[in-house]
Amino acid sequence: MSRVLVVDDSEITRAILGRTLRGAGFEVLEARDGAEGAVTALRERPAVVVTDLEMPTMDGFPLLRLLKADPLSAHIPVLILTSHAEAPSRFWSLRTGADAYLTKDHRPHELVATVHRLLAQAEAVPAPEEPAAGRPAVGPLDVLARVARQLDAGLLQATVVNTLLETGMAAADFHEAARAVLATLAEVVDARLLAVAVADPDRALLEILLSDPLSPEVVAAGREELLRRLSLPAESPVEVQTEGATGTQEADLQRLVWIPLCLRGTTGGLALLPRDPEEFRHTAAPRLEGFLRPLILVLDNARLSQRLHEMSTLDGLTRQLNHRAIYERLTLEMERARRYKTPLSVVLCDLDDFKEVNDTHGHLAGDRVLSEAAGVLRRHLRSTDVLGRYGGEEFLVVLPQVDLDAARQAAERLRRGLEEHAVKLSTGATVRITGSFGVAAWEEGMCPTVDLLVSLADRRLYDAKGAGRNCVHPEVPA
Amino acid sequence: MSRVLVVDDSEITRAILGRTLRGAGFEVLEARDGAEGAVTALRERPAVVVTDLEMPTMDGFPLLRLLKADPLSAHIPVLILTSHAEAPSRFWSLRTGADAYLTKDHRPHELVATVHRLLAQAEAVPAPEEPAAGRPAVGPLDVLARVARQLDAGLLQATVVNTLLETGMAAADFHEAARAVLATLAEVVDARLLAVAVADPDRALLEILLSDPLSPEVVAAGREELLRRLSLPAESPVEVQTEGATGTQEADLQRLVWIPLCLRGTTGGLALLPRDPEEFRHTAAPRLEGFLRPLILVLDNARLSQRLHEMSTLDGLTRQLNHRAIYERLTLEMERARRYKTPLSVVLCDLDDFKEVNDTHGHLAGDRVLSEAAGVLRRHLRSTDVLGRYGGEEFLVVLPQVDLDAARQAAERLRRGLEEHAVKLSTGATVRITGSFGVAAWEEGMCPTVDLLVSLADRRLYDAKGAGRNCVHPEVPA
Repeated sequence: MSRVLVVDDSEITRAILGRTLRGAGFEVLEARDGAEGAVTALRERPAVVVTDLEMPTMDGFPLLRLLKADPLSAHIPVLILTSHAEAPSRFWSLRTGADAYLTKDHRPHELVATVHRLLAQAEAVPAPEEPAAGRPAVGPLDVLARVARQLDAGLLQATVVNTLLETGMAAADFHEAARAVLATLAEVVDARLLAVAVADPDRALLEILLSDPLSPEVVAAGREELLRRLSLPAESPVEVQTEGATGTQEADLQRLVWIPLCLRGTTGGLALLPRDPEEFRHTAAPRLEGFLRPLILVLDNARLSQRLHEMSTLDGLTRQLNHRAIYERLTLEMERARRYKTPLSVVLCDLDDFKEVNDTHGHLAGDRVLSEAAGVLRRHLRSTDVLGRYGGEEFLVVLPQVDLDAARQAAERLRRGLEEHAVKLSTGATVRITGSFGVAAWEEGMCPTVDLLVSLADRRLYDAKGAGRNCVHPEVPA
Repeated sequence: MSRVLVVDDSEITRAILGRTLRGAGFEVLEARDGAEGAVTALRERPAVVVTDLEMPTMDGFPLLRLLKADPLSAHIPVLILTSHAEAPSRFWSLRTGADAYLTKDHRPHELVATVHRLLAQAEAVPAPEEPAAGRPAVGPLDVLARVARQLDAGLLQATVVNTLLETGMAAADFHEAARAVLATLAEVVDARLLAVAVADPDRALLEILLSDPLSPEVVAAGREELLRRLSLPAESPVEVQTEGATGTQEADLQRLVWIPLCLRGTTGGLALLPRDPEEFRHTAAPRLEGFLRPLILVLDNARLSQRLHEMSTLDGLTRQLNHRAIYERLTLEMERARRYKTPLSVVLCDLDDFKEVNDTHGHLAGDRVLSEAAGVLRRHLRSTDVLGRYGGEEFLVVLPQVDLDAARQAAERLRRGLEEHAVKLSTGATVRITGSFGVAAWEEGMCPTVDLLVSLADRRLYDAKGAGRNCVHPEVPA
């Protein structure tokens, strides 16, 4: 005869449920609250527990949680029988491990049928062996203390997750998000170095946090190791940021732990150098598991948002500002020049005979030439100069604080840079390319608008083309 | 004389700490574990509590949690004094509300100085009034049960957050993520209708989940209300998906609750129609607060990833496939045609005299013409035909399962569509535009590659231009 434990603070309810169950052939045990229920269940090990949710002292949730957490009672089916069907109580009962959920407006035969169903399901699961030494006596205080300890561990995780989400969401870009995430992890995992590495389609992103002052050699070796883990081609560009001071401490990078992260459309990983590898394996590593999902989400969010911003402002081929973005930037710089009475110039550059490259060597070669030409231009500009792809093979350079003379000299440097550069194609062929340049300076009276300034540069570019290409107009004074 | 409560399971530690504190002029109370500490603290209300973390029965965390949660003890400073400085225990102590944290290798004067500092800080906070009726007696069992109930509520939230993250991360696009998020919320908030609304730069995104079979009229009115909340211009395109069956139930939309969501670079909101507005205000609304952060992150992640995909495949101006995407699609269709021996044609369309539009009416007008021309072409194609912007004013149409004759007829429909369409500019002027069309059909022997097929269409487009524009080559048989 199977024994059913009924846990309810109402004597009447216990009597009604008891009669129904006894009538169906079960032996019935009773308890008046969760604490008494837990002690009885652990001592008597009934076949099924039927429990109310709201009870004085200890209610149904901690009881359920305790029974399901203890290896000696985890197999006992628990049926929640509650008076009101509030949305989260059903959700939470089933999430906490309840095997069935009935509201108190059920019919008696429903209760009996559910208990039978639970018994049938439970038969498939063998009950664990009673430990040979017998079970130490447990009182309600021990029971509750165990529940509290268990819950506390769960809540620690929840709090870290919340902190990860909170700090990560405030981040403006990938590196800021990664920095926030690593700072939070460093508070709960004892590691000498923590890092996040992501393989973006066009570059590797690394963020390294030093908790210990490791030597620059160790940090450099760690960086190489992270790149190796990303399995990127050797020549991929790398964007690396390091937080925390280097020093003289050595470290064994063999102990670097790598946890792969599956991000949207790319791969990455979290790397840690635990201070105490043994402690890490047993305590920190399982805890880390619970942090990976929010960590991934936060990193992905920042990364996607950064990429989206880049895609809407950068030209995909040359990685320089696109037409709209360089136009907007020029508008902004013109407003500044007007307000602060500072000079401003533009250089418009068109690659000479570019169509021939496409026709002779194909589109891929053309793309390569464009991309390298952009790189040459960028390298010959100062960091405050702004470069954009203005059209097919046309580039616009915005030179804040630069007057016409200096702008012509800048254009001449760009012209020479292109002339001296040779593009090696994958076919082995070498392509040489030159550019024609039109230069114009903004002046309050003369070129009041962005459009007029650019058309002036465009007319001078036309003159440069007419003068035989590969030159700057107006000419640089000898 | 201020009283300090020392909670530690070691008699020796209590004796040492007691001597130090008494030597500094404090009165000292003692307790042997968290439960005893809680009872003593609530009864005696000491000026400061100094507690160990690891103790039998009830350890330091639940004690700390309980003291900080009770209005009568929340003001009492708690100093955690622990033997080992494991990373998370410091983090967790401070997060749980500890006012100070010392490891047991501290010097006696550090302890005394810290207690003095805590006392000085606490003086700024007035202690709450003792209730007139006096405090009901509390035993350790009540204390622990209260802690457990409190923790359980915290853990419910953590579990929902985890579920939101888990289901949301698996989503492929915004609607799937919104659907997953709403389904999880519906389990913990009792609402007849739940919805997410987001104002993307180029459209409104709505996801509606019906828990009750509301009438189609109510749903339509709800949809209007959501759009009103987004404050979008009336003509914005709307992408709406509804989950759950409509029926005959009426509902008062005055009761719709709108919770603004701050997403990256846009705005949105979560809307609910609570079943019981009173219960919602008191119970569900405060609970919802804890879910907003993961909800925003999940929605944003799916939305950003979807936008990124669209941006990398769609032309920003015409919202049709960009050069790379239409080329890839043609490559795919050619493989299919080859494998299944089905016909495949392409139509290349170039707008006639488009440069004149730009020169006469400006770039903005040119953009408007391009965008409308793309719309006209799209409307005159079948849903299985694929349209892409191939270059500046050039469009490529891929026609799977279509032979040359049918393709020429399709091109003729497109030609007539353009011819009949008038573009109204914001200046009031009207622009008419025509297109020239080159048509080519794929044949295994003749046009084996995508490049050759497109060049054939290009040559015929050239012929069409030569024949006076606004026509299709090869000509459609009369």
